[in-house]
Amino acid sequence: MTLLVTGSIGIDTIRTPFGFSQDCVGGSAVYFSLAASFFGPVGFVGVVGEDCPFDLKEVFGNRDVDLQGLEVRPGSRTFRWAGSYEGDMNEASTDGVELNVLAEAPPTVPEAFRDSEFVFLANTAPALQMQLLDQLRGPELVAADTMNHWIVTAMDDLKELIDRIDMLVLNDGEAKLLTGQRNLVTAARSILDMGPRIVIIKKGEHGSMMCNKDGDLFILPAFPTSVVIDPTGAGDSFAGAMMGHLARSRKVDVVSLREAMAYGTVVASFTIGDFSIHGLKTVDMSDIDGRFDMLRKVTQF
Amino acid sequence: MTLLVTGSIGIDTIRTPFGFSQDCVGGSAVYFSLAASFFGPVGFVGVVGEDCPFDLKEVFGNRDVDLQGLEVRPGSRTFRWAGSYEGDMNEASTDGVELNVLAEAPPTVPEAFRDSEFVFLANTAPALQMQLLDQLRGPELVAADTMNHWIVTAMDDLKELIDRIDMLVLNDGEAKLLTGQRNLVTAARSILDMGPRIVIIKKGEHGSMMCNKDGDLFILPAFPTSVVIDPTGAGDSFAGAMMGHLARSRKVDVVSLREAMAYGTVVASFTIGDFSIHGLKTVDMSDIDGRFDMLRKVTQF
Repeated sequence: MTLLVTGSIGIDTIRTPFGFSQDCVGGSAVYFSLAASFFGPVGFVGVVGEDCPFDLKEVFGNRDVDLQGLEVRPGSRTFRWAGSYEGDMNEASTDGVELNVLAEAPPTVPEAFRDSEFVFLANTAPALQMQLLDQLRGPELVAADTMNHWIVTAMDDLKELIDRIDMLVLNDGEAKLLTGQRNLVTAARSILDMGPRIVIIKKGEHGSMMCNKDGDLFILPAFPTSVVIDPTGAGDSFAGAMMGHLARSRKVDVVSLREAMAYGTVVASFTIGDFSIHGLKTVDMSDIDGRFDMLRKVTQF
Repeated sequence: MTLLVTGSIGIDTIRTPFGFSQDCVGGSAVYFSLAASFFGPVGFVGVVGEDCPFDLKEVFGNRDVDLQGLEVRPGSRTFRWAGSYEGDMNEASTDGVELNVLAEAPPTVPEAFRDSEFVFLANTAPALQMQLLDQLRGPELVAADTMNHWIVTAMDDLKELIDRIDMLVLNDGEAKLLTGQRNLVTAARSILDMGPRIVIIKKGEHGSMMCNKDGDLFILPAFPTSVVIDPTGAGDSFAGAMMGHLARSRKVDVVSLREAMAYGTVVASFTIGDFSIHGLKTVDMSDIDGRFDMLRKVTQF
């Protein structure tokens, strides 16, 4: 397996100015895998409880997502998240969280996945992210996401994790909180000092930014869309398409990284165009390449 | 005269996390002219009271800014603005405003300026912007700025003005307020429906966006700088450099417009690097071209 993701599978309930979606498919690993599977095969590691109302085999359909690493844990309940968006919908308000199975031991990485070259540790407790990482043998690129909650409650673990990975992916507010810096360029450089060779900061409707230890800097606006129905999963879709492109091109040089971020931006623009995973289910690679070309066209001078 | 600006001259008092500057040089026409004068000559139209503590001839020094249109009005007092910035400094809080001479009749456009081809009507009451426009003979490109205050208090006048100009330049919050749209792409298209053939939306630290009636769309991040001391005048500097480049290239096609916005972005990045106009006083065209090349480098993929 070239690309591996570990992360959450969730039952989401989402309210936006455009509607309400109850108990729909969600979770970081699900959005990530759908997005990444446009570019190549994905190994999926995640855990649900015995109450999970949807079948991930059906969710992924004919996508090349290997569910060997999916654990259905008897006696446990699936992670649930309820959130809502208002105004410019750039940030979700969490209305309710039930960690459930995510508060238990992490799933096991199947033997067949342990030599994965590209790995994405989606957001969860940094101690669990490290337990997952411990199961792998010499991956080429390990990227991880995190969130405010862990910065506030598990900073020591998080710093240990950050020092062990190649790339940290986080949003602008998290980057500022993690570093105590108000300026994003300064925050990005502070994160590089913490260990990783690449940091990618997601800015929602304002796009994304990449800094690396070789001094390269890349700034990309979001794809200009007027169709924003449900931003849930945009960040995970961004990461999925980005890692998918890197795994496909089998390199992490500056050109590949920039293209990867552009693909991430484009795929996220489809995610936010409909509720839950529907925006990702109805597009194909030619739609993605069309928006990729348009993104290049609207940003060049 | 190729490029004409009408706008305010102000006595500013500014507080930022980096310091305090009392009774310093400010005003939209001043920032605009300093920025535009890197690219070519500027005709300046503005009015101060007899109390103005600084001499604009000294402010502009050897820059090619023609002060024929500067009126010192006896018995009047100069416009004053006090503002402060906190946190990420993306928005000023106004601590005090004295309109003074700006609440009186606008200055007269000198005969020598009335055939100007490129015109920028910096922010003031839209009725005054129209009185200034009435004094001109067939300009090639008229751009105008506005602000929340006029959207709320003088919408009819503002709509009449917008229908008479070629390009509206405003910030993201203003674009949303003016159109009632929450999505910026939709807001930009709504503004085009109001008359102008080009709309440019400034997004502060998040860059800028251009839409035109030919369907072209351009999105540009802000220049990545970690030195943000005083954002006052950033928008007027952006407009000044942009109009300066358009007047220099004597065309308003898509290539020139995109380059113009990039120059605007770069010059604004120098403005915010120091208090008041100091950031603009200490750079030269080679500094600007250096950042222009870097902006291209960090945005291409």
